[in-house]
Amino acid sequence: MGYFKSIFMAVSKTRIEHPSPTQCKATLNAIADALYVIGGKWKLRIIVALREGNKRFNELQRVIDGISAKVLSAELKDLELNGFVSRNVFTGTPVIVEYELSAYAETLNGVLQSLSEWGTMHRENVKKSMKKNEPVEA
Amino acid sequence: MGYFKSIFMAVSKTRIEHPSPTQCKATLNAIADALYVIGGKWKLRIIVALREGNKRFNELQRVIDGISAKVLSAELKDLELNGFVSRNVFTGTPVIVEYELSAYAETLNGVLQSLSEWGTMHRENVKKSMKKNEPVEA
Repeated sequence: MGYFKSIFMAVSKTRIEHPSPTQCKATLNAIADALYVIGGKWKLRIIVALREGNKRFNELQRVIDGISAKVLSAELKDLELNGFVSRNVFTGTPVIVEYELSAYAETLNGVLQSLSEWGTMHRENVKKSMKKNEPVEA
Repeated sequence: MGYFKSIFMAVSKTRIEHPSPTQCKATLNAIADALYVIGGKWKLRIIVALREGNKRFNELQRVIDGISAKVLSAELKDLELNGFVSRNVFTGTPVIVEYELSAYAETLNGVLQSLSEWGTMHRENVKKSMKKNEPVEA
């Protein structure tokens, strides 16, 4: 009985936890593709900031903690090139430049949601483990 | 009727496409938290490679295209520190060192799946648009 149970456990473990080398390679490639376009420290955050509504350069810089003007400018160019963001110029005095999400950026909603859920869960976990390690007051 | 419909569309559009500033800030923070631990070019790929089964250092380097030994070593230390990976040492001759995913790494399954689905979809899209732009043979 213990023998069969251990075989069953081994098999079910293989099925659930261990994708095959081919699956693994396919997932690896797909994730590499995804990270190639939306990886890095800032791109997803810029997209999230623009989901709230179109924004000007300075507004974006204010909302996204810690990004420099140089990096924001480069990232916006990249996002424009890859079709996630469009740059709208309204001529007048003064000229207004606004950044807007494209419809294609909405295909990222699932990724953003799962990342944000995981981030929230992880933060709670870190808080809990910090509480556990706190010295107990006498 | 058209009037109500347009109000309804406007409201539902606001709800779906434009999160409020507070929601936006919360999502921004959560995603920043997530990217702080699993961001960068390699961490998620190392985790995917280990989902297939425990691996030794050289095996990992072979599976993950383009990673240098120095970077892989640093990333593995980071992943160990954050509780995603454990480093198992089997004493003997030769000493075998294997890397194994922790149970906590499985909380990332949702993130990995959505990223990998998006990556696959994006690759197909890029292929299609490249085909469209190909010169038509006469």
